[in-house]
Amino acid sequence: MVDQRTVDQAERLKKLRHDVWQANLDLERHKLVTFTWGNVSAIDRESGLVVIKPSGVAYEDLSAENMVVVDLEGNIVEGDLNPSSDTATHLVLYRTYAKIGGVVHTHSPQATAWAQAGKAIPALGTTHADYFYGSIPCTRALSNKEIATDYELNTGLVIVETIGDNDPIAIPGILVKEHAPFCWGKDAHQAVHNAVVTEVVAGMALQTLQINPAVEYINQALLDKHYLRKHGANAYYGQSAKNKG
Amino acid sequence: MVDQRTVDQAERLKKLRHDVWQANLDLERHKLVTFTWGNVSAIDRESGLVVIKPSGVAYEDLSAENMVVVDLEGNIVEGDLNPSSDTATHLVLYRTYAKIGGVVHTHSPQATAWAQAGKAIPALGTTHADYFYGSIPCTRALSNKEIATDYELNTGLVIVETIGDNDPIAIPGILVKEHAPFCWGKDAHQAVHNAVVTEVVAGMALQTLQINPAVEYINQALLDKHYLRKHGANAYYGQSAKNKG
Amino acid sequence: MVDQRTVDQAERLKKLRHDVWQANLDLERHKLVTFTWGNVSAIDRESGLVVIKPSGVAYEDLSAENMVVVDLEGNIVEGDLNPSSDTATHLVLYRTYAKIGGVVHTHSPQATAWAQAGKAIPALGTTHADYFYGSIPCTRALSNKEIATDYELNTGLVIVETIGDNDPIAIPGILVKEHAPFCWGKDAHQAVHNAVVTEVVAGMALQTLQINPAVEYINQALLDKHYLRKHGANAYYGQSAKNKG
Amino acid sequence: MVDQRTVDQAERLKKLRHDVWQANLDLERHKLVTFTWGNVSAIDRESGLVVIKPSGVAYEDLSAENMVVVDLEGNIVEGDLNPSSDTATHLVLYRTYAKIGGVVHTHSPQATAWAQAGKAIPALGTTHADYFYGSIPCTRALSNKEIATDYELNTGLVIVETIGDNDPIAIPGILVKEHAPFCWGKDAHQAVHNAVVTEVVAGMALQTLQINPAVEYINQALLDKHYLRKHGANAYYGQSAKNKG
Repeated sequence: MVDQRTVDQAERLKKLRHDVWQANLDLERHKLVTFTWGNVSAIDRESGLVVIKPSGVAYEDLSAENMVVVDLEGNIVEGDLNPSSDTATHLVLYRTYAKIGGVVHTHSPQATAWAQAGKAIPALGTTHADYFYGSIPCTRALSNKEIATDYELNTGLVIVETIGDNDPIAIPGILVKEHAPFCWGKDAHQAVHNAVVTEVVAGMALQTLQINPAVEYINQALLDKHYLRKHGANAYYGQSAKNKG
Repeated sequence: MVDQRTVDQAERLKKLRHDVWQANLDLERHKLVTFTWGNVSAIDRESGLVVIKPSGVAYEDLSAENMVVVDLEGNIVEGDLNPSSDTATHLVLYRTYAKIGGVVHTHSPQATAWAQAGKAIPALGTTHADYFYGSIPCTRALSNKEIATDYELNTGLVIVETIGDNDPIAIPGILVKEHAPFCWGKDAHQAVHNAVVTEVVAGMALQTLQINPAVEYINQALLDKHYLRKHGANAYYGQSAKNKG
Repeated sequence: MVDQRTVDQAERLKKLRHDVWQANLDLERHKLVTFTWGNVSAIDRESGLVVIKPSGVAYEDLSAENMVVVDLEGNIVEGDLNPSSDTATHLVLYRTYAKIGGVVHTHSPQATAWAQAGKAIPALGTTHADYFYGSIPCTRALSNKEIATDYELNTGLVIVETIGDNDPIAIPGILVKEHAPFCWGKDAHQAVHNAVVTEVVAGMALQTLQINPAVEYINQALLDKHYLRKHGANAYYGQSAKNKG
Repeated sequence: MVDQRTVDQAERLKKLRHDVWQANLDLERHKLVTFTWGNVSAIDRESGLVVIKPSGVAYEDLSAENMVVVDLEGNIVEGDLNPSSDTATHLVLYRTYAKIGGVVHTHSPQATAWAQAGKAIPALGTTHADYFYGSIPCTRALSNKEIATDYELNTGLVIVETIGDNDPIAIPGILVKEHAPFCWGKDAHQAVHNAVVTEVVAGMALQTLQINPAVEYINQALLDKHYLRKHGANAYYGQSAKNKG
């Protein structure tokens, strides 16, 4: 007799494979990646299974079928290929934050420059405030010991340490020092969206500082206004919200 | 019996919907927008009706039919979708300046960097002078009170405050501080054209200052010459003017 | 009875119209122009007739047929459209330098930034030295009087003043201060080629100075070597020269 | 009677011509070249024959057939065209380093800016560390004598002088001062791959320094970790390595 839960899970995973495959291709469409320098994953919360890009495979060779399925401890559940070498980092985020449904890692050049510089991307305007409710933080450097053992796990842990008690969805991205950005969202699609925003605001922020090195952070009232008109309980941007004041 | 004025108005609105739809697509063609970060509107002066992009809809999903028609007070006259969240800003410009026929808002990166820096884009060369008869100004920051209530309306009012007694067509664009550019023209097409110019001269101006931080503003006589050979009574650029001296 | 010289001239002009049309399209292919901000011309030395882009016409509307033919004094010999508003500048160059067969004007952004900054593009490497036998100079500013009367003619004259006794083919381009680059070559195709090089080396030079503000000009021996291996009597780059030492 | 060694060599050269042709086209696909400013070669170690791009030929006119075959002393063995003017530089690298199978030279703009500045590209992050086990060095300037005689040979010799006793595969690229980058790898494909990385990290490094002029080089432990997880004996990036710890 067929277990309906098994059927449902297979359906959900099939859709998730498709979404994660497409989200990985979106990295190329949005010019966030060179070669294979980026990966997207998403989680099926009901089963605790994560779908992620295989390691080192060119984007044109990806398919829904060759995405790798792992459990939250990183054991391969489905798939013949190695999962992304950054899998352990993704899994820390899923294990720690129930709200996170998709994770993206890229080396997009402008955000990576901020990560290499070891500086948070300051919130300087409404483009930033529409998506990030404050500066995009940069982690501390990992210690030699953290690098030597369980490096990818420790990369996830330093992200969690930096987020602290904040809501990860309010600032859905971070820079890992000397490395590059990790971004996330409620699903793979939103995670990629936030990775694009991170790259755009990284470039704008550098240019802003070049024009005016004494620029001040965005007025808190304006940050509130823009973030909340898109994300707050009374959001009125777009078509899903009909409650415009 | 058919009212000929009603027929004429329907014809004009049909054409305007088409023009505004195409002008919105031009934002993508000219690489001024990421995702849905831009909108174009145009006005039918005879009826006082404004056609504008719906809020948060992807450019590939736009059509002449799903453009939204509002009156000058922002009431939806035709259309099932919410109009752009920036509609109130557009409407202030139409209500204040009879010469303005089209309005564009983007977050094009180089112009946005100047807006975030809170600095006017100085007129440094003839590329700028061919379209803008002086620097592209930057507004003051909005007060917390202006942000809290009627934010988009107040964005329009601070633009008007900055233009003051100047001719809005002679300098067809402005930077809203900590936000991004708004541009305009006699119709939607010219408004987009001016938004492209704003982005290009923003980038050139930063590079110019990087090469020579002590650069001076363009000689007033050269500014006059270039602006007026394209826009003055004795213009001789292009094919419509046959009065070349 | 048919005059063979007339037939020959018609043949040459037909080919020249085609070449100038294609060279104008190459400005777009090489991303040197926004809208109609660029023009190419070429001269038929035997007849002294110059083929040039019409003013303010979009590149997609250009054809070999709508190119304008003018004589060296600027009189329209063939064509229904106004020639480029910069025609008088092109003609000064053809009248002064017998070696120049094609002229290009663009507002390509990086070269224009140097022109706005009023600085020559220094020869900092072999990319530059392969085409320009020294820095790409920048003219002085025009006086108010030169701007007020015969502006385009005076733009040509200040270029000639800047070149002085130098060979215009050895440094086939110049920056007009507060304006933009003019480039040239033995024909329209080479003029466009040199306009591309000007844009590329302009960008490289700014980045070089940002990395090392104290950088010195290229060693003269290396400038000689690269320029002369491509352009000297003993050139050995490419396929036409078989005299490699 | 057919010599099997001759047959085998012909087969290998046929494949190498194809690979080198494609690798040259990859320079355009990755936007590393303007016009013909780049060339790729590869060596067949068994015969000591090198396949290289012909000099000054446009990429669209290249074919597997018109690649030039030279021996390690630069004598043309097959082909009607002149080999790249930089052939002598490539040959020094093949003669000196048995591990090098492919060589690329470009004038990619960001890497060239560092070469013009006379500065090594510092290792500032993991993007760099994934491919280069330390900074990408810059050679000293050539002396006037080295420029005057056997210039291309001396360009190769100064590269070798700069590499010194280091493993050329651990840092598979270099900047020739006042000139541009040369990169290499085990074959033509990897050499192009490394040329792309060089361009990307060159741009990131400049932006990093603009954000934080006091930035420090990457932690040595992190450099080790990233380089070795891709290239060490226990590499676990990608699909060929199944030894993930």
